[in-house]
Amino acid sequence: MKKAKIVTVLSLSAAVVMGLLTVSIRENKAEQLQIAATPEIKPFEVRSSEWGKHYPRQYSTYMQTKKGSQFVDAIKEEPALAILWAGYAFSKDYNKPRGHYYMQEDNVTTLRTGAPDPANDVHSPQPTACWTCKGPDVPRLMDRDGELEFFTGKWNKYGSEIVNPIGCADCHDPKTMKLTVMRPHLKRALDKNGTLKYADATHQDMRSLVCAQCHTEYYFHTTKWKDDKGVEKEAKVVTLPWDKGFSFEAMEAYYDAIGFTDFVNKLSKAPILKAQHPEYETFRTGIHFKRGLACADCHMPYMREGGVKFSNHQVGSPLDSIGNTCLNCHHDSEESFRQMIGEKRARAVQLGKAASNVLAKAHLEAAKAWDLGATEEEMQPVLQDLRKGQWRWDIGVASHGAFFHAPEETLRILGKALEYGQEARIKVRAILAKHGAGDYEAPDFSTKEKAQALAGVDLATEAAAKKQFLDTVREEWFKEAQQKGVFDPESRKDLQRTTAW
Amino acid sequence: MKKAKIVTVLSLSAAVVMGLLTVSIRENKAEQLQIAATPEIKPFEVRSSEWGKHYPRQYSTYMQTKKGSQFVDAIKEEPALAILWAGYAFSKDYNKPRGHYYMQEDNVTTLRTGAPDPANDVHSPQPTACWTCKGPDVPRLMDRDGELEFFTGKWNKYGSEIVNPIGCADCHDPKTMKLTVMRPHLKRALDKNGTLKYADATHQDMRSLVCAQCHTEYYFHTTKWKDDKGVEKEAKVVTLPWDKGFSFEAMEAYYDAIGFTDFVNKLSKAPILKAQHPEYETFRTGIHFKRGLACADCHMPYMREGGVKFSNHQVGSPLDSIGNTCLNCHHDSEESFRQMIGEKRARAVQLGKAASNVLAKAHLEAAKAWDLGATEEEMQPVLQDLRKGQWRWDIGVASHGAFFHAPEETLRILGKALEYGQEARIKVRAILAKHGAGDYEAPDFSTKEKAQALAGVDLATEAAAKKQFLDTVREEWFKEAQQKGVFDPESRKDLQRTTAW
Repeated sequence: MKKAKIVTVLSLSAAVVMGLLTVSIRENKAEQLQIAATPEIKPFEVRSSEWGKHYPRQYSTYMQTKKGSQFVDAIKEEPALAILWAGYAFSKDYNKPRGHYYMQEDNVTTLRTGAPDPANDVHSPQPTACWTCKGPDVPRLMDRDGELEFFTGKWNKYGSEIVNPIGCADCHDPKTMKLTVMRPHLKRALDKNGTLKYADATHQDMRSLVCAQCHTEYYFHTTKWKDDKGVEKEAKVVTLPWDKGFSFEAMEAYYDAIGFTDFVNKLSKAPILKAQHPEYETFRTGIHFKRGLACADCHMPYMREGGVKFSNHQVGSPLDSIGNTCLNCHHDSEESFRQMIGEKRARAVQLGKAASNVLAKAHLEAAKAWDLGATEEEMQPVLQDLRKGQWRWDIGVASHGAFFHAPEETLRILGKALEYGQEARIKVRAILAKHGAGDYEAPDFSTKEKAQALAGVDLATEAAAKKQFLDTVREEWFKEAQQKGVFDPESRKDLQRTTAW
Repeated sequence: MKKAKIVTVLSLSAAVVMGLLTVSIRENKAEQLQIAATPEIKPFEVRSSEWGKHYPRQYSTYMQTKKGSQFVDAIKEEPALAILWAGYAFSKDYNKPRGHYYMQEDNVTTLRTGAPDPANDVHSPQPTACWTCKGPDVPRLMDRDGELEFFTGKWNKYGSEIVNPIGCADCHDPKTMKLTVMRPHLKRALDKNGTLKYADATHQDMRSLVCAQCHTEYYFHTTKWKDDKGVEKEAKVVTLPWDKGFSFEAMEAYYDAIGFTDFVNKLSKAPILKAQHPEYETFRTGIHFKRGLACADCHMPYMREGGVKFSNHQVGSPLDSIGNTCLNCHHDSEESFRQMIGEKRARAVQLGKAASNVLAKAHLEAAKAWDLGATEEEMQPVLQDLRKGQWRWDIGVASHGAFFHAPEETLRILGKALEYGQEARIKVRAILAKHGAGDYEAPDFSTKEKAQALAGVDLATEAAAKKQFLDTVREEWFKEAQQKGVFDPESRKDLQRTTAW
């Protein structure tokens, strides 16, 4: 090739590249301007796909929450759970948490929510409160019906209303796009606790608080009220037990002070506190919180596409993307982090499984003591140890990622769970001895079948009723919702029914 | 003042400052050259003050190890210890560790080493091995007498030979000043373990390994041998249980495999492993080791005096100097670090005290079961749980600073200690029940006096004999040592006798 020709080709190539760049920059500018100009989204727009029209990157990453979350039957994996929760709906069915995409689906398909009859609510064992964290229909209904009305009645009351999984409207103001807490219980709890008043929350605080709308310990506070027509009603209001502090012991002290019990274990008759998923409380005790990080820093790391920076809405395990999470601050290989985090997990699993095993034995041994004629007075100290031990165990294992968010607090609380669980067993052993059964051994609960049989769970009947409900009542609920214009079919795109029964 | 005058004054001032700087730089240069030219220090020079003549900064900081280490009677603080160690010398007297300056003194004044009679060794309950970590006379004697001869005989054999506390010659080669492991047991253990062969150790490795000469778990391996004259002898050789790995479970597996037991608890008859002070093993599981730090990075941080950089030989708690240790790498306030580390300590103390309490009860309950006629066969599972539990508890608390070096491993192992301790109690409860004492409660061990009485410790007699020994025999030992030219009176400068009895 002659020199002149080369020069011409190079010049033309450069011109093309420059032209493309100009177009790209213009497009980015245009897009940035479009983003800066907040679009019109109507108040309480529950359909995330509508928001997605204006925020395609956030929406498409959000929709990825359907990936990477394997369905795991937790009771099959750890049959002791059925014993620990005997007499409580969790003993029937409990699966490890999946992505936000599955929130509505998993709440409806679990045996815990029963198989409501459309005609009456006798088969709807749960209150409306069980919907509180399942999707953006909740703030919509709280706005429409009032918070107390929302928390009144049985779960099936809102079957045709709460039909979309956790989505955009759960955390964002549709006018300003700002992060917003849409559930009043969190604001109230923060203000009563006083450490961080809601009005004082910074943007960085908000990047944790929108998560803390759901990722906290809570209970249903029974509240009598009268509606506009003077009708007396009873609400089960989601309430966070933070008045005495965020620590596990402070929450326990709160419950003890108000004499609260989530359920009485069917076998041991112990008054049990069911820890929910105190991620926010656990995170607060760990080093990442203390260093100023928010949930979103690791669970929604920033991404870049062309000139546009946005946060990844595929909320999930930061381990799936170590290079884009841990390694933003730490310097090491992904492999090294994966191994170190694996060690952390293994430690918590070791103590957690030891504690569940010990506590399950204690419940069964206590049941035997009752059978043999133990008295209330004899059993009281045993039941109190069981309450304390099970609260600590549940805190340690129910809090997603506790082994990572606060490994030391988690191991400490699990160690105490072991101590209390065993203490209960020592005390019950003395009672068993008094009744001639000092060498009693608890029955085998090593499989889900055996453990659920001991807990009195009739899985086949429960499952048949549930299947019938899903194929009939639930389909009607979707149809009604679609007629009301609140159901977003896109939110269930490619969804396959998966259950443990 | 006129302008000219001002200029003159300023010029003169500048000249003086420059002159002083030049002198200072020259002095520094001279000193640096002097340091570069390694002085003549004779082999096995046990007198640290002799080394100090050439290394005044290192020596003067080393001498500061007498400061800042409060004398704490650990049994008074935690009376359960006397029960856990019943039948073992530790139940008599155990004080929290102090600085290197006190190493020889504290070994001689503790009731554990008895009150040897100069004429015979009947009152010398310990083997020579108990000197192994007490000072630079040890490598000197190993060189002079041979390692096996060193490890043969009773503790009093070397009373007039081992008279200086841990000092320069314990870690440095007198010719090259290089860090050197002076005790063969560490080299052998590293080579057998294989993770880090001694010959492959880098300088950074050595900055931990010189510490690991003493700061490890060990036991006395009984070794038959013949001396030059063919006399059959038995040595108690300090040996590190690392063949199967550094982890606590790997060390336990090593001991189980060779059927080793440090002592049989006098109350429960459980075959107990006494964990020593596995700092190196614990440190290896923590994040600072994994990030490449050595003991000296935090315990002997670099200092600067004029142009001379040297490491601070006041080995102690890095908490005494957070600004010069933690804050070299981390960014935060001293106060924030102190608080965070306080939380770590509180967690480990919580589980550690819970475990010692549980284990002490288990020993006492087991003693009752024996009294009532329990059989060997019945008791075996109890004793095995006690062995496992007490090993884990002791590992968790005997390792100095474990709560910081490896908070998670420490909490994990203490959690398991609680589980095993309580498991022993549950099993012994069934045995007690069989013998009509299902509701037996262990006696009170809440004070040192009560606990030592239960453990059968006659403190008054022990103390009287010890005092007599210190005032007579020991003074003779010092005189003999001075005549031999091995005792450095400077090493005991300002030393006050402090004991717990």
